[in-house]
Amino acid sequence: MESAIDTHLTCPRSISRRVPDDYQPPFPMWVGRADTEIEQITMGYLGVQSHGEAHRAQALTAVAEIVAHLDHPHGPSHHDVTHHVDGEGYDNFIVVGYWADPQSCTRWLGSPEVDRWWSSDDRLTDPVGYFREIVSPRVDQFETLYAFQDRLPGVGALMSDISGDINEHGYWGSMRERFPLSQNEWMQPPRDATLRIVSGDPAAGGRVVVAGHDNIALIRSGQDWREAVEPERSLYLDEIQPTLHQGMDFLRDNGADVGCYSNRLVRNIDLDGRPLDETYNIGHWRSLEKLERWAESHPTHLRIFTTFFKVATELDKLRLYHEVSVSDAQDQIFEYINCHPGTGMMRDASPAANQ
Amino acid sequence: MESAIDTHLTCPRSISRRVPDDYQPPFPMWVGRADTEIEQITMGYLGVQSHGEAHRAQALTAVAEIVAHLDHPHGPSHHDVTHHVDGEGYDNFIVVGYWADPQSCTRWLGSPEVDRWWSSDDRLTDPVGYFREIVSPRVDQFETLYAFQDRLPGVGALMSDISGDINEHGYWGSMRERFPLSQNEWMQPPRDATLRIVSGDPAAGGRVVVAGHDNIALIRSGQDWREAVEPERSLYLDEIQPTLHQGMDFLRDNGADVGCYSNRLVRNIDLDGRPLDETYNIGHWRSLEKLERWAESHPTHLRIFTTFFKVATELDKLRLYHEVSVSDAQDQIFEYINCHPGTGMMRDASPAANQ
Repeated sequence: MESAIDTHLTCPRSISRRVPDDYQPPFPMWVGRADTEIEQITMGYLGVQSHGEAHRAQALTAVAEIVAHLDHPHGPSHHDVTHHVDGEGYDNFIVVGYWADPQSCTRWLGSPEVDRWWSSDDRLTDPVGYFREIVSPRVDQFETLYAFQDRLPGVGALMSDISGDINEHGYWGSMRERFPLSQNEWMQPPRDATLRIVSGDPAAGGRVVVAGHDNIALIRSGQDWREAVEPERSLYLDEIQPTLHQGMDFLRDNGADVGCYSNRLVRNIDLDGRPLDETYNIGHWRSLEKLERWAESHPTHLRIFTTFFKVATELDKLRLYHEVSVSDAQDQIFEYINCHPGTGMMRDASPAANQ
Repeated sequence: MESAIDTHLTCPRSISRRVPDDYQPPFPMWVGRADTEIEQITMGYLGVQSHGEAHRAQALTAVAEIVAHLDHPHGPSHHDVTHHVDGEGYDNFIVVGYWADPQSCTRWLGSPEVDRWWSSDDRLTDPVGYFREIVSPRVDQFETLYAFQDRLPGVGALMSDISGDINEHGYWGSMRERFPLSQNEWMQPPRDATLRIVSGDPAAGGRVVVAGHDNIALIRSGQDWREAVEPERSLYLDEIQPTLHQGMDFLRDNGADVGCYSNRLVRNIDLDGRPLDETYNIGHWRSLEKLERWAESHPTHLRIFTTFFKVATELDKLRLYHEVSVSDAQDQIFEYINCHPGTGMMRDASPAANQ
């Protein structure tokens, strides 16, 4: 049994854990182990938004263009591609890339081919919208949790190793306790923190930039049933998935009430846009605390949690995991081009004071 | 907003809370406030066990005798009387008394009328069984929580006052954080702690004494719908009660697997044995931690919890509450006369080494 917090990130605590020293988790779970030279990483959510079947082909062409851009010396180490229909009925395709250091991502964003493409006035007249939601948490600002030990998805693809059985799971509060930073920090946003529109006007379309704030939490919570056979396949499709969809729809539609800025349940697709048997939820939260409160009190999430508890020791091919991060305001980029005003961080953002 | 921990019991912490300083509970709840001169209290569960309708009248006579004993200068400040049928099909009547200091209870137990009655060989030939489960937690070893503010039941009857809205509720871990002792102690049992038969043989009947261990946790969790009218009555009877019964039956029948030594869902009765619309659960646990782990992961409890969350702000006449304590081994008495071997703390007790 080892700590979810890697040895080189362990330090004297001023905030104690929630459970006694001899706490024993009820089943095994694992976390990713990054090389010690990794200090900060970047998660880039690069989106294309279209409306209606007529624009789907153009959206997929744009997705292919973004994916082509990734093939670059400073491109991400890993990426995947997803699709979802949002609450307003728009199609959204997101290319999600992971960089092992933010400098690489900055260089990639600033490279002529990428920068020219993003900055071009052609983007304003394209029949699709675009967005970039990019955050760069330090290694003490994120945690992972896997119910399996191989081929880690998401940020796990940056990890060279997997832990042994970890101690910090199976109780409410364990997510927080897997963050190295939790040893000494609460990871709270400033009390008066808000999302702010710093340029553009969401209602008018065009280019919009939203400023975040310290300690916005981002969760990617995944379900991969590509290799699952019966009875595991039915367990997922009949017992877990319907409740998952219910909970994620709740957050998509009512997130503002509980501190969830944006929630998207996305499905992985191949490059032709065909759905794969893999989904994940992408949730942006005002704080880790708001995410905790929702997760531990909402009926849908509790139902998923108790089902998972029941079956955790029997999971074979069904791959369930999550990664959660917080980031500093200076390490967040939220930019939109011709997206509807309910998109991403625009929905809950206040206009700048001088507008 | 005030702390659940009374001012005179607040001290510098070495164990931090689970939630940030600016945590705001989602609805109001209250705790009892005892006079500052109260340092330790006693909760006495005085039982009569019978089998079959034929012995019910004799059991009720014994109950009346115990209740008559309570009318004594050193008797408890408050008591109530309950009935339940246990997992083995026996009727159990429990008179539950609360003393504002353990010396009074000791004097009561040692008073000629009570001591002679309990020690008499007549008890061994009575057609009913008897038990006494008595614990004396210090004021830093227990906590209360009420969804109402008047006529506090149980240990609340020893309290002269009720708090204002308290902060420590609405999240997993708040029960522990309402214990004054949690500021600096984990309230764990010794690692090798077990219940031990120190005299007698449960299988043979007769007198049996069980020794407990430090930090056994005792929860009384109550539901009083006597004054509830529609729609609150249906909310309780149709939505809460069935799940409650399911969860409590689970603990009664499977408690040993999860660290629950004994679990009894009891119904208040009047002195003629007629049921009142008031129940509570009496659970003895190896530790507060085992109780926490069960409560926050078992589907039945989570269902009750989410229902309560939904309706908490609308409760009017439905009275829901709990009290939880831990106690030192030296402040525990577990004694049985002619009870079946699955009764109370006997079930999970190991025979003494020399037997």
